[in-house]
Amino acid sequence: MTQGGFAERLAGAVEAKRSQVVVGLDPDPAQLLPGAVERAGEGSPAERAARAVAAHCGALVEALAPTCVAVKLQVACFERLGAPGWDALAATADAARAAGLLVIADAKRGDVPHTAAAYAQGLLGATPTPWGPVEGLGADAVTVNPLLGLDALEPFVDAARAAGAGVFVLVRTSNPGAVAVQDEPADTPLRLRLAALVNELGGTGPGLSDVGAVVAATAPELIAELRAAMPRATFLLPGVGAQGGSVDLLSAAFAPGSSGALVTASRSIVSAALEAGDPRAAATAAEELRATTWNLR
Amino acid sequence: MTQGGFAERLAGAVEAKRSQVVVGLDPDPAQLLPGAVERAGEGSPAERAARAVAAHCGALVEALAPTCVAVKLQVACFERLGAPGWDALAATADAARAAGLLVIADAKRGDVPHTAAAYAQGLLGATPTPWGPVEGLGADAVTVNPLLGLDALEPFVDAARAAGAGVFVLVRTSNPGAVAVQDEPADTPLRLRLAALVNELGGTGPGLSDVGAVVAATAPELIAELRAAMPRATFLLPGVGAQGGSVDLLSAAFAPGSSGALVTASRSIVSAALEAGDPRAAATAAEELRATTWNLR
Repeated sequence: MTQGGFAERLAGAVEAKRSQVVVGLDPDPAQLLPGAVERAGEGSPAERAARAVAAHCGALVEALAPTCVAVKLQVACFERLGAPGWDALAATADAARAAGLLVIADAKRGDVPHTAAAYAQGLLGATPTPWGPVEGLGADAVTVNPLLGLDALEPFVDAARAAGAGVFVLVRTSNPGAVAVQDEPADTPLRLRLAALVNELGGTGPGLSDVGAVVAATAPELIAELRAAMPRATFLLPGVGAQGGSVDLLSAAFAPGSSGALVTASRSIVSAALEAGDPRAAATAAEELRATTWNLR
Repeated sequence: MTQGGFAERLAGAVEAKRSQVVVGLDPDPAQLLPGAVERAGEGSPAERAARAVAAHCGALVEALAPTCVAVKLQVACFERLGAPGWDALAATADAARAAGLLVIADAKRGDVPHTAAAYAQGLLGATPTPWGPVEGLGADAVTVNPLLGLDALEPFVDAARAAGAGVFVLVRTSNPGAVAVQDEPADTPLRLRLAALVNELGGTGPGLSDVGAVVAATAPELIAELRAAMPRATFLLPGVGAQGGSVDLLSAAFAPGSSGALVTASRSIVSAALEAGDPRAAATAAEELRATTWNLR
């Protein structure tokens, strides 16, 4: 299983082309090839920009296919154009495949396991629906962010193996800020170094800042420590309900006042509506959580 | 500046509704409200699923608006439906705003500063194009991943402040795997713990695995150490060229063989085409990098 398709396909492509070069495409609509700008056509700014971006990437793919082994598509640069941008991303991936290039989706996704599986469906697999499967981007490999740990990486690895694809995990990134987080040994937990970043970004002043923090409701024993480290941050507390967190243990999060923390619940609210077949049933579940949380202050 | 609009708007909304509850919407096309399924209409599976997802989310937004202060949209669950999914995401954000809910885009994005700015354009700002600005999602807040450090967070914070929006930085996530990465103190750099994750995911066996690693070409002094920690991982090496990395220093990455590492370059290749106004000029730049890299083995 670990000798899966990707490593072999990559080795074959590298040898065939005698190339280990990956061209990164991070198209900027303001800096496109002249021939691509001419192909913008009509429509909204997003539609015209996305069409021009696809033409720009297509021309580069064609020119670079003999020299490069893969194309790395910077997903940010497509998704900022909304739905037309996702069409341009898919068109560029198709063009690269047709030209014999491997496609690396530089998406740097990472989330809790349930959500990581959804990202993997979109990039590497397919999404089952009552109307048939929705095929994803079909990337040969995807970049992923390991901050959330092993269980959050596994859905990407599983989906990649099922598709004969690969993953590239961020281990040491190339930006100057990487040093402080990724290189410096520390006898404090990473969460406290991240909390210090949040506090620094939030600046000083009275009241709450515009830089908040996601802090798990499933680890309530950490809340007081993190509140002390980030006195001005609004906490977004996931994990209540379906993930097992209890609201009663979260009161330290609300120390700065009523908007000092937000409790976020997904399945525990929405499942009530699904079970009843009626969206109004969700409101009942949400109202219970609202009252419990409001009375914590 | 740190008393920007978001904290005040949030405080006002929390007090007005006496609610700190955020409902998370992570729609699964296979589990939608019956009334939403009926509104799938015609078209491709993606189009039908996205229309049903938007209807499902719209019904929940309407039912939950009086009780919740914000909606947290799980971007993964929309983007796995491709372009129609992004339209559904935008429609849900619009419906939430219209219903008086704040919109938190749960995107967990994070990338090097240049790319982080592109993500921020798509979620919080707008993208300039020759055809006019492309407005982004217009979220009131976005979740971001801090693994890349301070300089990679700043573009999100800057864009949020410019828009009167906020960011929520992942500090302690709610999944079980968070403990090993975020909680355990360690006297080794984080990059080595991440390398151990990569090695574990890759499994044992001969040859290269399908779990690779992104390792900065801008920190060549780390390559040998990381190669020893991940003997079976293909390295994806960004940062050559425009970011200042030199190919000559990367030979340790290729120890497992010719497909043991890939060198990825974006601006240094594409800018040649932009300067010449001809995609073929990119091939010349790529060929130089190809030959230099191939001869490193």
